[in-house]
Amino acid sequence: MIYCDYAATTPMSEKALDAYQQVARSYYGNASSLHDAGAKAGNLLSQARQSIAAHLRVPHDSIVFTSGGTESNCLAIDTLLRSIQKEGVKHIISTSFEHSSLFDYLQSLQQQDQYDVTFLSGNEHGVIELSELQEAIQSNTALVTIQHVNSETGVMQPIENIATFLQSQSILFHSDCVQSFGKIDIVLDTMPIDAISFSGHKIFGPKGVGGIYFHPRLRLAPHPVQTNHEFGLRPGTVDVSGIFSFAVAVDDMFHKQKDTFAHLCQLRNSFHQQLRDKQLPIKPIVNGDSHICPSIIGCEADYLQGDYIMLEYNRYGIFVSTGSACSIGNHETPRSLQAIGKTNEESKRYVRFSFSHLTHTRDIADIISVTETIFSSNERSRIYE
Amino acid sequence: MIYCDYAATTPMSEKALDAYQQVARSYYGNASSLHDAGAKAGNLLSQARQSIAAHLRVPHDSIVFTSGGTESNCLAIDTLLRSIQKEGVKHIISTSFEHSSLFDYLQSLQQQDQYDVTFLSGNEHGVIELSELQEAIQSNTALVTIQHVNSETGVMQPIENIATFLQSQSILFHSDCVQSFGKIDIVLDTMPIDAISFSGHKIFGPKGVGGIYFHPRLRLAPHPVQTNHEFGLRPGTVDVSGIFSFAVAVDDMFHKQKDTFAHLCQLRNSFHQQLRDKQLPIKPIVNGDSHICPSIIGCEADYLQGDYIMLEYNRYGIFVSTGSACSIGNHETPRSLQAIGKTNEESKRYVRFSFSHLTHTRDIADIISVTETIFSSNERSRIYE
Repeated sequence: MIYCDYAATTPMSEKALDAYQQVARSYYGNASSLHDAGAKAGNLLSQARQSIAAHLRVPHDSIVFTSGGTESNCLAIDTLLRSIQKEGVKHIISTSFEHSSLFDYLQSLQQQDQYDVTFLSGNEHGVIELSELQEAIQSNTALVTIQHVNSETGVMQPIENIATFLQSQSILFHSDCVQSFGKIDIVLDTMPIDAISFSGHKIFGPKGVGGIYFHPRLRLAPHPVQTNHEFGLRPGTVDVSGIFSFAVAVDDMFHKQKDTFAHLCQLRNSFHQQLRDKQLPIKPIVNGDSHICPSIIGCEADYLQGDYIMLEYNRYGIFVSTGSACSIGNHETPRSLQAIGKTNEESKRYVRFSFSHLTHTRDIADIISVTETIFSSNERSRIYE
Repeated sequence: MIYCDYAATTPMSEKALDAYQQVARSYYGNASSLHDAGAKAGNLLSQARQSIAAHLRVPHDSIVFTSGGTESNCLAIDTLLRSIQKEGVKHIISTSFEHSSLFDYLQSLQQQDQYDVTFLSGNEHGVIELSELQEAIQSNTALVTIQHVNSETGVMQPIENIATFLQSQSILFHSDCVQSFGKIDIVLDTMPIDAISFSGHKIFGPKGVGGIYFHPRLRLAPHPVQTNHEFGLRPGTVDVSGIFSFAVAVDDMFHKQKDTFAHLCQLRNSFHQQLRDKQLPIKPIVNGDSHICPSIIGCEADYLQGDYIMLEYNRYGIFVSTGSACSIGNHETPRSLQAIGKTNEESKRYVRFSFSHLTHTRDIADIISVTETIFSSNERSRIYE
């Protein structure tokens, strides 16, 4: 079995799983309870928060834990918008290729006539240029939210430049960093970004845990449900086992980040090289490598539909994806492919490989070999039909 | 150590923890992915849903999983309100002693001028009578939400009668069953209730997992974030390990529900009896037993503040509470005590013991003995000062 769907989800690392179990057994108190069982859990929660904050080089109280990436995105936007004191700033800028948790949420704000939202589509490489952003800014722009790495194309946005520019305009900036967190260095200590979202299960931590970083300079409005959990920003009993396990996974990812990045670049180069060498009818969907996160390899086949290719790979025990798992059942053309000018037909031939430090060099050879088999047998059937 | 704060949270059972670990290791795929790793996880998710639904005697697709009780409450209300097709039904009825996740959420709806909310306060025993509810109904009442068991007083509301009455009025009815789920039989197959909320960590399942039951006759409006997860009602990658572990905990609770209930009644009777026999200056805050959930024993001391009593117990390794852990840091009088006519002074002398099947009969003797020590030493200090 070769799992190539790490962008959809990852298995928990043994370290993270072990941490979960230990905390669940020995630190089960409600972190807000005032007795010793609560205090013990509360202390461990602080440790987890401090550990993650240290890796991000930010103060510990700038980290808020949530139930995952989707909640992080919605809660971050909601909190930032609620915190704006200025009247009449009712315009938001985002992109047309955000994760559905953000895109749909912004659309719902628009439908409720609460905000007007401009969705940028980026250039032909899928990148938002400052000029495009600048043009979209209005006098009533409250917030910009642009993802760091796209889950389908792997395209990275220049969030550092965007953050610096938006700071000069006094406009809040949030970035969905679910696909990049722990994989790409996000220099929060120097970047004037107001919030980022991240998730546990994309980095070998547990599902059901995520987080938000809010810039410490912000004065955030409390959650409508009054709570003393998570600095008043997120109600609900805190899942200390999940969070501590997540912190262990973060620690692991950050320690090996450089090595993993180099390994992923090598895997990608080798994969691309072999696709070209064997003249296989499958190629990267976005040209260039420098602005693509190496863990995600979005491809387009010359013929055969992505769904069919995915099922064929599955027969050989290779697990790939034909789009965000969050939008399966939804048969529209992925918005990220529309944005770089792909037609509906081309989008149907999309297939994604996503790798991790667990992917071996020899896996690439196996994937290439199965790819040859899939396409050659289907090529033959095309000839004889 | 005697943990008497099971109403705040419970430790995960070994069975639930074991299930978590096994699923995390072998079923880590994204339940929405179409390859075999996803399908395996998806099948396990279905099994968990079916198991819980069977215990509740409802169809499996009437169960929606969430990140816990707070999300269940907010999402249930939100979904029900969004699903109402009739124009102009903008009135909600609830109680003044709901959990903060509901009370504050309803207040925020009111503040945004979206809904008008009537908060009932119940009779002197803390019970909502049908006559009080009936009087509050307006022609534009959309929804009633009344908790099943109060976490501070243990008072149970007659939700079956309320459900039957509200069905005759064609008004939607939701109940926060976080404190009763798994402990008291909730006869969903015959009760015309539209939704109930429940949570994992109150019944020896994991934190960060909860659920909603929606009556199968309802035509529910999808979540604003379009998703194929959870029947379109809740976005975000599904935490299959947590949910399966929760299902194992539910199974366990339902199997021993009758025995546990009897055990809890015995513990409570013994505790009350010994408090009386020893003439200790601490007594149940609500009179009568028949309408009180036996897992929660809310008490009032004749003198000494609850916070002080709690800390004294803590010194002896007995963990009790002075109110909902969700409202610690909040120094207002608990709303549930206000509702039964307690003054601010009386409320400050509140202390809660909450028991479970893990509480032994001998624990009661130890608690009584420590109670004697705490009050007698403080009585002495009062005399000599």
